[in-house]
Amino acid sequence: MLIIAERINATRTSIREALQKRDSEFFIQEALQQAEAGAHFIDLNAGTEASREVEDLKWLVEIVQDEVNVPLCLDSANDRALEEALKIYNKDEVMINSFTAEDERIRALLPIVKETNAQVIGLAMGEGGIPQSVEDRMRLVALLVEAVERYDVPQEKLLIDPLVVPVGTDQNQGRLFLETLTAIPREYPPLRTVCGLSNISFGMPNRKLMNRAFMGLCIGHGLHAAIIDPLDRKLLSVMYSSEALMGRDEFCMGYLTAFREGRLEK
Amino acid sequence: MLIIAERINATRTSIREALQKRDSEFFIQEALQQAEAGAHFIDLNAGTEASREVEDLKWLVEIVQDEVNVPLCLDSANDRALEEALKIYNKDEVMINSFTAEDERIRALLPIVKETNAQVIGLAMGEGGIPQSVEDRMRLVALLVEAVERYDVPQEKLLIDPLVVPVGTDQNQGRLFLETLTAIPREYPPLRTVCGLSNISFGMPNRKLMNRAFMGLCIGHGLHAAIIDPLDRKLLSVMYSSEALMGRDEFCMGYLTAFREGRLEK
Repeated sequence: MLIIAERINATRTSIREALQKRDSEFFIQEALQQAEAGAHFIDLNAGTEASREVEDLKWLVEIVQDEVNVPLCLDSANDRALEEALKIYNKDEVMINSFTAEDERIRALLPIVKETNAQVIGLAMGEGGIPQSVEDRMRLVALLVEAVERYDVPQEKLLIDPLVVPVGTDQNQGRLFLETLTAIPREYPPLRTVCGLSNISFGMPNRKLMNRAFMGLCIGHGLHAAIIDPLDRKLLSVMYSSEALMGRDEFCMGYLTAFREGRLEK
Repeated sequence: MLIIAERINATRTSIREALQKRDSEFFIQEALQQAEAGAHFIDLNAGTEASREVEDLKWLVEIVQDEVNVPLCLDSANDRALEEALKIYNKDEVMINSFTAEDERIRALLPIVKETNAQVIGLAMGEGGIPQSVEDRMRLVALLVEAVERYDVPQEKLLIDPLVVPVGTDQNQGRLFLETLTAIPREYPPLRTVCGLSNISFGMPNRKLMNRAFMGLCIGHGLHAAIIDPLDRKLLSVMYSSEALMGRDEFCMGYLTAFREGRLEK
């Protein structure tokens, strides 16, 4: 499982405050802890205030990039913020989070993806929002695939997020999501899938329990990458055990190592 | 999920000792606690000593059957123990655990199953032991289905246990089991599937964590019934949340009720 570490996200109050204070030590610790916990990418989201986001994202990249050995995932809906941040980014590998099947977004973002050889997350969402069936989502996946091909970006660089809709609003949403997860690599073998888990439990009690269970189900349906908090020990325990059980962890070495390092819950 | 409560099993030392002492109060409490925790069947296994098993199983049935409102699952490899216990059993519904695709076992057990209108667990195991591919297991499922049809027992009464082999002996065993789980009702829609989970983690550290993760994966692959300890709060929490996420819990009412009753972990 490719872990995209989600903690540095300025839609969270504590992160926004530290960002406003330019508390570089705070962000260095956040990044180091997440890398230590097994993150493969550190996601940086500088928030949604258009007036500040370009400068804030650039500052975050500058602070974090030289402190960790893992690449960054630049997370913004603002094309200019991504473009400016990429200009100062100094590692080979990078991920961009995210584009959608909307023309404007495709035209703005995919030339940058091509130029920087980035991996990119594509959301299965178009002008009409999030579709309500596997077939309709697969139609959007087809649009995302066409888009990357038009810009000569290989399918291997694309991670599809089929978009999680809360199961509390419609009890079929979990199943619909999981069926889409398995349909994507069946139809397009080079594609990988990714998601943030926590939206599934929106509106329900005991959300963390439900998010953990959803992690297991997603691994059981082939999820390749997850945008998660790698410091969540219980969540990571479900990840390690489910991957071992699905034969995705050679000789169960990942599970056994996590156990020996005391990183699994009982 | 149909819960077959496993605690009263004389292969466990504490149960064997209580059985030798004829400690009826102990067994009544064990049965009541499991029924209260949501068991749909209380499994009774009186151990494997041929000389004692007939009397021991009869005694257990007598002690337990009038104390709980749920039916019993009579669990023995000894045909005579099952036959004698069924003679004194006084509820309408009963489950028999288990028969295999071996001729001798089929001939001994299925007439009793037919006569008592029992539900019956069939193990996907034949004269040659546990087969190592989905196809070979499905061949054994076909033999089990032929067997029940030969004795005029409807397929709806048969629960197939595809048999869990520890993932520590072969990392593909989890996936193989899960693929068999989905293949069974696809090929034989009236059949249900059942398993004991805990064998999956044999030889691994932190077994309970792995068993819980396997519960989630099994629900994600359509498991209908599980032989479990319903007093295991963490395991049941995974069960409730995974069923809600798979759309198997209408309006998530089972999950929400378990939450309100304080039966879910955080």
